[in-house]
Amino acid sequence: MIEDWDLFLFPYEQAAKEWKDKLRGIRNEYQSRNQQSPIEFVTSRIKAIDSIQEKMKRRQITSDRLSEDMEDICGLRIMCPFLDDIYTVVEILRKRNDISIISERDYVNNEKESGYRSYHIVFSYSLQLVDGTRQILVEIQIRTLAMNFWATLEHSLNYKHGDTFPTEIHTRLQKASEKAFQLDEEMSQIRHELEKSNPATPTEQEEH
Amino acid sequence: MIEDWDLFLFPYEQAAKEWKDKLRGIRNEYQSRNQQSPIEFVTSRIKAIDSIQEKMKRRQITSDRLSEDMEDICGLRIMCPFLDDIYTVVEILRKRNDISIISERDYVNNEKESGYRSYHIVFSYSLQLVDGTRQILVEIQIRTLAMNFWATLEHSLNYKHGDTFPTEIHTRLQKASEKAFQLDEEMSQIRHELEKSNPATPTEQEEH
Amino acid sequence: MIEDWDLFLFPYEQAAKEWKDKLRGIRNEYQSRNQQSPIEFVTSRIKAIDSIQEKMKRRQITSDRLSEDMEDICGLRIMCPFLDDIYTVVEILRKRNDISIISERDYVNNEKESGYRSYHIVFSYSLQLVDGTRQILVEIQIRTLAMNFWATLEHSLNYKHGDTFPTEIHTRLQKASEKAFQLDEEMSQIRHELEKSNPATPTEQEEH
Amino acid sequence: MIEDWDLFLFPYEQAAKEWKDKLRGIRNEYQSRNQQSPIEFVTSRIKAIDSIQEKMKRRQITSDRLSEDMEDICGLRIMCPFLDDIYTVVEILRKRNDISIISERDYVNNEKESGYRSYHIVFSYSLQLVDGTRQILVEIQIRTLAMNFWATLEHSLNYKHGDTFPTEIHTRLQKASEKAFQLDEEMSQIRHELEKSNPATPTEQEEH
Repeated sequence: MIEDWDLFLFPYEQAAKEWKDKLRGIRNEYQSRNQQSPIEFVTSRIKAIDSIQEKMKRRQITSDRLSEDMEDICGLRIMCPFLDDIYTVVEILRKRNDISIISERDYVNNEKESGYRSYHIVFSYSLQLVDGTRQILVEIQIRTLAMNFWATLEHSLNYKHGDTFPTEIHTRLQKASEKAFQLDEEMSQIRHELEKSNPATPTEQEEH
Repeated sequence: MIEDWDLFLFPYEQAAKEWKDKLRGIRNEYQSRNQQSPIEFVTSRIKAIDSIQEKMKRRQITSDRLSEDMEDICGLRIMCPFLDDIYTVVEILRKRNDISIISERDYVNNEKESGYRSYHIVFSYSLQLVDGTRQILVEIQIRTLAMNFWATLEHSLNYKHGDTFPTEIHTRLQKASEKAFQLDEEMSQIRHELEKSNPATPTEQEEH
Repeated sequence: MIEDWDLFLFPYEQAAKEWKDKLRGIRNEYQSRNQQSPIEFVTSRIKAIDSIQEKMKRRQITSDRLSEDMEDICGLRIMCPFLDDIYTVVEILRKRNDISIISERDYVNNEKESGYRSYHIVFSYSLQLVDGTRQILVEIQIRTLAMNFWATLEHSLNYKHGDTFPTEIHTRLQKASEKAFQLDEEMSQIRHELEKSNPATPTEQEEH
Repeated sequence: MIEDWDLFLFPYEQAAKEWKDKLRGIRNEYQSRNQQSPIEFVTSRIKAIDSIQEKMKRRQITSDRLSEDMEDICGLRIMCPFLDDIYTVVEILRKRNDISIISERDYVNNEKESGYRSYHIVFSYSLQLVDGTRQILVEIQIRTLAMNFWATLEHSLNYKHGDTFPTEIHTRLQKASEKAFQLDEEMSQIRHELEKSNPATPTEQEEH
């Protein structure tokens, strides 16, 4: 039994803050060099207490194994403009020496049955606390803006109408995901063709 | 001639901060009521000085008319999950009594030639300064996540490869915008069908 | 009985965010004009639920009168460098036309029995919500850095050792408050003397 | 010659963000354990470009040695409630294994000629950039609220009236600093006496 959730969750909240800064720093570094960033924006969330409890029950995770066995208490999400950018970000993360990667799952090319696409990385991070160091698991989901569009809307429908959709809706959502993915591929192709014919002459930037 | 840009831009920066808070407040209000928000996220930007100068030249706007004649120095952007949400947000803004709406343009149903879609509202806001009140023009762009996907990538290609694309690329971008819009319509339809058959039984939320 | 505290507290949280921005905006406005700001920094807090409940009991405030009768649910604090700055800030607030001031208490010149000094202003603010406008009470405490030093430490001792100090400690705290106030007066005098002999030739700024 | 200051300053800005989070994390960790934090608040600043240039001239630092020879480009400041807290924070920093301390200066007990008091620590921090790791110098100033009161006001007078005060003013500022320090000592003594007679029974917290 976790008796004091504030106390339990503090290191995850701290890790989420530090990583939001680090990932946004990657975007800012590209911008400081006047280069286009493979990261469009970054969000973070701490898993809600009732979601943790529900998952503990479902996966039979005990309190004393919670920190080791639940990988997504501290979650970050990176949204990339183009499809290729996902793998650029993966490479950047692999080269960092302040983390140790535990697992990677490529749901970009191997989408889930629902149609969900993203690249998932779980790593262990040495968080400095007042009394010493603590290993914290962090999950990062990397996806394009198009994948994020689909996942956000599917989640929203899910949230309001329950986990299981009628078969017909289920199929339509899969198809919508497929079409979003085709859009990603088309935009990537356009980028590559422009790059071939016209190597980089930036005009004025005006970004929201 | 604007002699001190920091001084000139300060009220726009202040208005942008206040409005980012106000618009995020709408999202938080829905969440505090456990309802799904028509606003997914909000960004703001102040127009870059060289963009202001370039637009002054292009539109022949003089310094003394700058505050009245350039409507997008203070810009905010609202990203909505579903197509209908755009018009919900427009209604919420129309009902506010702390602004006076100057113009509205519906580029959602009347997309620009490039394929660009968004709903634009320009309003005047009474900003309180130390020495009194000042009317500031604010432009808000409201769009779906799918429209934002397309606009972000098109802007990115634009930035790197110049304002005018080869005709073939131009046509492909228009088609991609059309497909993104069809995805928005399909997701809206799915939402309406689920709503008809199954009025609102929320399950657990887990949001990034 | 308040049944849903999240729902009850949302407007106060929103008002606190908007006012933190507005008050920090005053500081930024001075800085944009290269003038020294009467505001050093701003903090905000929402009254903790158990503090609200304790005060309801103590003052016999019922749930249906809570929004009208408890004035400090939404609280902001302005820290000023110099003593005079407090009254400059009071004047700035009095001139604003987006609030209606309900009460002012000058605990700067009429300190509380404990030694506490600050200037308190309570006003009513028209908060825009999705369904219309709502009047929210906001309390602003204005104090110097020296008053804040004393109040922070007294609060800290209070928090750890209970509300009532032994008489000897009580007297020593009163005296410490008096000495902090004398320091404020001395620093103000130095400022005025420098101003008389040497009207404003700023050197380079280097501010944390 | 530094040609691109944005590019040069980016790593310092990133380090400042990461360290602001880390230091605020120490405060939050104490609060999550319901203990009083030795850190009241944290600020950060990047040295202004003209201040860097002025210091390069004054200390004869060349561009290619700037990162090694100027220690305060990335600066953080920790404000502590009580005098003892300064040394608690110093101990916490010494124990961290993500930094390597380069120098420490105790201007708390050995105040500068002006009356300035603070504890300064300079350390080297391994910042992760896209292309690898970079050692960044970070300066942290640790001081009480009373020391911060004095330093803020002295800086403010300095800024407006030039670096050198008339002798009489200089002496009065030294005396004010001395009195502020006596207040720190008195408050510490009160804390210790309360602690002896009454070991820790926290009442309700209400913090801004």
